[in-house]
Order: sequence, then C-alpha cells, then structure tokens
Amino acid sequence: MEPKLELSIPPLDAAAAEEAKQRQARLTKPAGALGKLESLSIRLAGMVGRLDWLPLRRSVVVCAGDHGVAAQGVSAYPQAVTYQMVLNFLGGGAAVNVLAHQMNARVTVVDAGVAGDFDAHPALVQGKIAPGTADLTQGPAMTPAQATRALQLGVKCAQIEIERGLALLAVGEMGIGNSTSASAIVAAITGRAAAEVTGRGTGVDDAQLQRKIAVVERALALHDPANEATLAKVGGFEIGAMAGLMLGAAAHRVPVVLDGLISTAAALIAAQVAPDVKHYLIAGHCSAEPGHAIALEWLGLEPLLQLEMRLGEGSGALLAFPLIEAAMRTLNEMATFDEAGVSERDAG
Amino acid sequence: MEPKLELSIPPLDAAAAEEAKQRQARLTKPAGALGKLESLSIRLAGMVGRLDWLPLRRSVVVCAGDHGVAAQGVSAYPQAVTYQMVLNFLGGGAAVNVLAHQMNARVTVVDAGVAGDFDAHPALVQGKIAPGTADLTQGPAMTPAQATRALQLGVKCAQIEIERGLALLAVGEMGIGNSTSASAIVAAITGRAAAEVTGRGTGVDDAQLQRKIAVVERALALHDPANEATLAKVGGFEIGAMAGLMLGAAAHRVPVVLDGLISTAAALIAAQVAPDVKHYLIAGHCSAEPGHAIALEWLGLEPLLQLEMRLGEGSGALLAFPLIEAAMRTLNEMATFDEAGVSERDAG
Repeated sequence: MEPKLELSIPPLDAAAAEEAKQRQARLTKPAGALGKLESLSIRLAGMVGRLDWLPLRRSVVVCAGDHGVAAQGVSAYPQAVTYQMVLNFLGGGAAVNVLAHQMNARVTVVDAGVAGDFDAHPALVQGKIAPGTADLTQGPAMTPAQATRALQLGVKCAQIEIERGLALLAVGEMGIGNSTSASAIVAAITGRAAAEVTGRGTGVDDAQLQRKIAVVERALALHDPANEATLAKVGGFEIGAMAGLMLGAAAHRVPVVLDGLISTAAALIAAQVAPDVKHYLIAGHCSAEPGHAIALEWLGLEPLLQLEMRLGEGSGALLAFPLIEAAMRTLNEMATFDEAGVSERDAG
Repeated sequence: MEPKLELSIPPLDAAAAEEAKQRQARLTKPAGALGKLESLSIRLAGMVGRLDWLPLRRSVVVCAGDHGVAAQGVSAYPQAVTYQMVLNFLGGGAAVNVLAHQMNARVTVVDAGVAGDFDAHPALVQGKIAPGTADLTQGPAMTPAQATRALQLGVKCAQIEIERGLALLAVGEMGIGNSTSASAIVAAITGRAAAEVTGRGTGVDDAQLQRKIAVVERALALHDPANEATLAKVGGFEIGAMAGLMLGAAAHRVPVVLDGLISTAAALIAAQVAPDVKHYLIAGHCSAEPGHAIALEWLGLEPLLQLEMRLGEGSGALLAFPLIEAAMRTLNEMATFDEAGVSERDAG
C-alpha cells in the first residue's frame, strides 16, 4: 500500500510547449543548434504554462537523515558526519552554500531524521521523524506511518516555499549510509541487480564496496523487491521528504531539479505515488554512482551535466541552474530571423 | 614556415596548482567528490598563479570572416548571413548576446574578413584583412602575409582586452563555410580522414555532407596535409584572429574558454605557433560536430559540457563560465574539516 497524499499533478501545458517549439524555429540560429537547451526550454514552457518564465526565486532544500544501515560499515565516514554536516550547512561552509550563493538560491535544511538535536535556526526546518531509520538488513527501515509522515513533511516544505514565491526547486540531501538505501530503492524499482546500481558513495574501498553490495542484496532478499512500500522497507526519512518535496512542487507546476543518486531514488519513490511527477523533474547532472544513470533512464530523464561529481547536498542540481536560465533566456530574448533581417536556410 | 609572433607563453605555476590540490583535500567533502570542478580549480590556479582568483571581468570576442569555399555549396545558409549575423551581434539579438548578458560578459565583435563593410560601432573592431578568403579547393585560402596579419589582429585584440582588466576570455566566431575550413585544419593537424572530422555544420543534408567531405578531401590533396602553413592554406581570417587571441591571452596568463569546432581548430593553429598555449585553454563544451571531439582529444582537453550544441558564436564557451566560477568559489569559500568541526574519513 502506497502512502496516500491529498494532491494531484496537473498535466503539462501542451499549447505552451508547442508555442515554444515554434518560436525556437524562428530564432536567429540553425534549427536545433542550441541542442539540449532547446528541448529543455520546450519542456519548461510546458511545465510552467508560459514562455516568458525566468526562475528568479530559487531554492535548494537539503533534507538530512540518518540510517540504521550505517552500522553495517557501508560508508567511509562515521555516522556523526550527518549531524556535523547539517551544522556546516547552517554555518554556510558547505559546497551547497557556496554554489547556492553563486546561483542566487536560498538554502533550507530539513532535519527529517538526524541522530542528534539541533538548536533553532532560521534556515532549519525541524521535522525529525525519528533519530535515524532502523537497519534495513534487519527489518523495515521505518513503519508505513513514518513513511507517510516523511512524504507529508516534504509536501509541507514545498508548500511553504511556494507560498514565498518559489519558481525553481533543487533538492539535495545529507545522510551517512543513504547511498546504500538509495541503491536498494533503485534496484527494487528498476529490477536491476544490486551490483549494477551500487557504487562507492563517499568513496569506500573495494572491500567495503563488496560489503555494500552484499548489504543491498540482503535488503532486497529480506524485503521482497516487489514495487510497493519501498520507502518504508529500504528508504530513509530524508528520501521520503525529498519525494514529498517533488510531489508538492509538481502539484503547483514548479520545476524540480534532481541532484545525484539519492535524490533520483527519491524521484522513483515520488513516481510510485504519482507517476506524473516525472513531467516536472529535470536531471541536473549524472553522477559517478552507477545507479544514478540507471534511475534517470527509468524516469526517462537526460542529465544536463556530467562532471563526475558524487557529493550530493544539491550541488549538481544547483550547477544546472544557469543552463535552465539560459534555456529560457535564449527562447525569450533572441531575435527572430524577421526581426534581425537575417536570411533563412537556402531552399535546397 | 609558421607565422612569427613576438610573444612567449609563461609556464604554469606549479606551486599554486599544488596548493590548490592540497586545499581540495581539506575541504568538507569526500576527496574528489566535486569531480571535474576540482581538477579545473587546480588547473586554473596553475594558470593564474593564485588560488583566490574569481573571473569578474569577462569577455567574449566573436571573430567573423567569410570563406571563398562557400561557393562550393558547403553550407545550408547563403554567404550573406555572415554579414547579417554580425549586425545581429551588434544589435544584441543573437544567442551570444543573450548568454553574455546572463554570464556578465562583454561582447566584442571582430571583423577579420567579412564580405561587406560595417559602420563604426563601439563593440566592433574593424580588422578586415580581405573581404573573404579565396576558395581553398582552388589554391591557398590566403597568403602567408595575410595569415600573419590575422594572428596579429587577434593578439592585438587580446592586448586591448587585457589592458581593460580582462580575467576570462571566451572565443567565438561567425563565418558561413568556416566549418569546412575548420574540418580541413583538424584533418591536416591530427592526421584523421576528412570523413571522420567533417560534420553537418549549420545543418546540411546528406548530399551536402558528402559534397562537404569531398571538398575537404580535395583541399587536403591540393595543399599537402603536412603540418605547416595550415592557416594560410585552408584556414580563415576569423580562425587566425581567434588563434591570435588565444596566444595573446595565454601570454598574459589569462584563461581562454574554447567554444565549438571552429574555435578548437583555431586552438590547433595557436598550438602550431606556440604549443604551450594549450596550458591556458579550457574546453567549454563538446559540440555535435564529429571533428570537435577529435580536436579536443589532440589538445588533451576534456570538455565541461556536452549539450549537443552546434551554434558557435561563443555560445558553448559562455555556458561554461558558471562552472569555472563554481570551481574557484568552492575551492576558496568552502570550509575545511578543521574549520567546520566535521570528522574526516574513518581510518580504515
């Protein structure tokens, strides 16, 4: 049984997308010469329902949570790093802060389930569902009720952002052990083998990678990889919150930029709840994690960047913001052949 | 005989590059997790000789020229489009204008050899060497003296920009027929076959592509593909000017961002004159033209973006500016493990 959420995803605006496509053909450039920027501009016009859209109000929401499976030695870093990195996000010292500043995006951090309590902070949403999930090799990572609460937390965060005028959302995360959880989600939903979708995460060595693959295999064997209750069985609180953010944004036609493997695993969860959420997702980049490309392909998304990054936090999503802006600026601000008095193609 | 220019390319600053590398290892992220941004930041530190560099003063210089080979029907557009598009650049309506505005870069247009005269304009450098090259299937595209003048034009433009404080340079171009010239340059210098390096340019159909390949083959057969006087034999005035810009910028340690096939062919010419120019080049993107990846590989450069673009003008170079800025911002502005109180990797 999937968590029930009171929201519906509106269809894309086919007329706006068609208008964007026709305008692209009249701009002073060979047809198709802006490559993926052109198809992106057409998709975005369909999402937001107009051509003259510029994503001025931008946010990155970083969801954090701990994972019981960290006890299995699947990460190169101790579990305390989740808590410490949340403090780093709030202090402005992490990659996500630097990139968000550059890209003119606001940073919000959501404690969806960190093992440790935080003081109040204007950029922190205190949404802790529990101080870390249970170990998914021993049983479900969370109860069905907790899974629903994680999704609802994300939906609520999206609503708050949208009330503030949000135009473009990047989702990021922090959680020691969460690439193991994400790999299990990708394997469960796409049907691929653990060894195909499991990578080095923060940088484990060969022996740890083999252990991590074995952990994912145990989780799949224990939980029955059938495509249901995946979030509760092998997910994480921050993954559920990210999925909720995507659903909440899509319900209001706000484009969502995915980051790495973990946010894309969250997108798979969101698509279980409401398949049409896919229409509002943009793949910011493809990371070095092998499961990421597999999950993106399953979603039918082509990544904008391939920079061999594997950091998370929303870093790869933020780096795609200028490309999204460029797609819309070229669509709107370039002259047409008529306006510029430039000859079109030779007839033949 | 190669054109002689009075300039020397300084060596990279190995100490600054090493300092950047060591700092990357202390920042609050798994080692290597920022992927190509990390290696880019290390290269940039070596180019400019310091870590705390941000490319605030940015320019894109668009070099334009016509090509006698256009008479062979190698383009989907009439030759007049070169002239018309220069007017579009000066009027602010082209993709390069829109992207330069977004990326906070100044646009300068250089008439290196357009068939048509322009009124004075503050953004136009009137450097016309001749109103178009000769047809490279009939004889040399230009005289050796013209080739030297084209290079000198670019060097002078770089010097003017640098006197104004230039920190980061993108090079772009416009010239109907110039993807044929560029393909001949790439074939001559890399030794690859015409069919491997010749693509559809502005979008020619199958029959035109075969004709274009045959034209490149005839040019190579006529001129002896030996690796000398390549610019004069099969180049273009705007290609020479771009090569000069690269040499002039590198002589002052200013990083140069390459655009598509044609600017990368210009980089091959620049590297004939002074091989060390390669150290100051950044591959902004890899275009849909098959010769582009081959030329980049020959130069030892990895592209930052792969967006299936094939527009030129400097568009792909400008799109890489935010990645260059992000590489330097993360290097400089992220907290270290010590500063943020974040635990480093488990010992083993």
